[in-house]
Amino acid sequence: MVGFASEWLKPRRDMSAFLEYLARARSRVDDALDRTVAPLGTPPPTLHRGMRYSLLAPGKRLRGCLVLASAELCRGEAEVALPLACAVELVHACSLVLDDLPCMDNASLRRGRAVLHAEVGEANAILSSVALLTLAFDKVQQAALRPRVAVTATRRLAAAIGADGLIGGQVADLESTGRGLDLEALEFIHSHKTGALFTAAAELGGMAAGAGERELRALQRFAKNLGLAYQITDDLLDFSGDPSVTGKDAGRDREKTTFVDISGIHGAQRLVDELIDASISALKPFGRRAEVLVAFAELVRARDR
Amino acid sequence: MVGFASEWLKPRRDMSAFLEYLARARSRVDDALDRTVAPLGTPPPTLHRGMRYSLLAPGKRLRGCLVLASAELCRGEAEVALPLACAVELVHACSLVLDDLPCMDNASLRRGRAVLHAEVGEANAILSSVALLTLAFDKVQQAALRPRVAVTATRRLAAAIGADGLIGGQVADLESTGRGLDLEALEFIHSHKTGALFTAAAELGGMAAGAGERELRALQRFAKNLGLAYQITDDLLDFSGDPSVTGKDAGRDREKTTFVDISGIHGAQRLVDELIDASISALKPFGRRAEVLVAFAELVRARDR
Repeated sequence: MVGFASEWLKPRRDMSAFLEYLARARSRVDDALDRTVAPLGTPPPTLHRGMRYSLLAPGKRLRGCLVLASAELCRGEAEVALPLACAVELVHACSLVLDDLPCMDNASLRRGRAVLHAEVGEANAILSSVALLTLAFDKVQQAALRPRVAVTATRRLAAAIGADGLIGGQVADLESTGRGLDLEALEFIHSHKTGALFTAAAELGGMAAGAGERELRALQRFAKNLGLAYQITDDLLDFSGDPSVTGKDAGRDREKTTFVDISGIHGAQRLVDELIDASISALKPFGRRAEVLVAFAELVRARDR
Repeated sequence: MVGFASEWLKPRRDMSAFLEYLARARSRVDDALDRTVAPLGTPPPTLHRGMRYSLLAPGKRLRGCLVLASAELCRGEAEVALPLACAVELVHACSLVLDDLPCMDNASLRRGRAVLHAEVGEANAILSSVALLTLAFDKVQQAALRPRVAVTATRRLAAAIGADGLIGGQVADLESTGRGLDLEALEFIHSHKTGALFTAAAELGGMAAGAGERELRALQRFAKNLGLAYQITDDLLDFSGDPSVTGKDAGRDREKTTFVDISGIHGAQRLVDELIDASISALKPFGRRAEVLVAFAELVRARDR
């Protein structure tokens, strides 16, 4: 496995071609998201303002791009994958609004702007987030999938959100705030809070391409490791704590145990390396065609270096 | 149309057979709901406690029973309709938890018990409600529908929840609190807050039975009128305001305009009569087979008499 990864990792790849690819994919996702929510002024206006404010806030759209790249890897069409990319970004936007609420992380900044509940009030923020989630499930049905695949994709998305996914992770996260955690507990939280949606993104991309079980399992392993690595790089970036870089409140997560607390900076970086190597290894069945996803993983590795 | 309705309405029907039917349907829905959410103690325990507390609170399960009765009317099997009945009840339970939150109606009692956020805290209440909603979409996929019908049913449910359904109605409701409303504005709120899910329930039942367009349209018209009538009877019951009957805080809705405020008790009762007559008229295409749904409508009419 290490052998396969090392083919790609040494010499360190030139990222510029991939960054151009990513910019194109991101702009495609952004355009589709813009068309997903009714224009400002559509009644009820506050709801649509709230939905647009959080969904269209400047963001990397990494999860949406992961859907597109995974579909492409499995020789699928971006057009089919695009509604699924929107679905995943809708779920992500919903989860950010909820995470920021006064009763949860009580944040004030998100993606460099005031959090949604500061803009439209708590009730409208909650209702907007639930509307985004609902729209995510609708989006899956809009994709030109075979109906049987749509059913599977819907279940896959629901599983990534529910008690065994995002929500389960968020509950565990809230319960652990202010308490010391060991590495296992922290990995549980983040494999749910971040890993579950990354994994669903890659799998949904594969489903858009009609991928088989073996390919879906490879994508799953890739994205699971990538998602956890991504969260650790988030902790590393939060540790440096410049809100102009992170777009979040500096040190907001300080009362939460982070990977840096447990493993130190170098230990956390080593963990990222291991996870990224594992994610790249998982792509072995795809051979050279996996180039884009390998670059994806390398980009995550490079986030905090 | 009035002619058709009057066939059923005079002489006033004996409800006892229907009440037995309803008790059986309700117990069927209750059993299915109990199996829908993981048992108490499943991790994360607080989340599952929250989900079970709100979903399994004593309730009439009218919406779930409406799914079953509509499926039966279209000669469908209850077994196929049951997961859809659960889906509709899951959405309903989610909406009640959100309605009760401090930033919304700030209620303390629901279905005769403390509201969910008083039991598990606000964050867990919100996360439980979102988990219930997610589970609703999963439930639709579990029904033994043709995959193409599952896609349509999922879209139908999403539409009933989103900006043109429950959530749109709740936003309009919050915006109007403390302000006088006219009948049209009040009907807008409740045709969304209550009517949308009643309508989806009847249509989903029809879909479970493979009903055609004409039947689905009839069910839609039936349930739309029924839902609004139901809300008005709620206002009439709230007006009398005995929490031991309503299970809610007495007079909690007093700062909101109600149908009783606008039309008076007799005017509101007359409105209920008109809506119930219209809902029964909509069943004309089904002929005598519509007996159960006619009784359903009569039960709603009788709620406040």
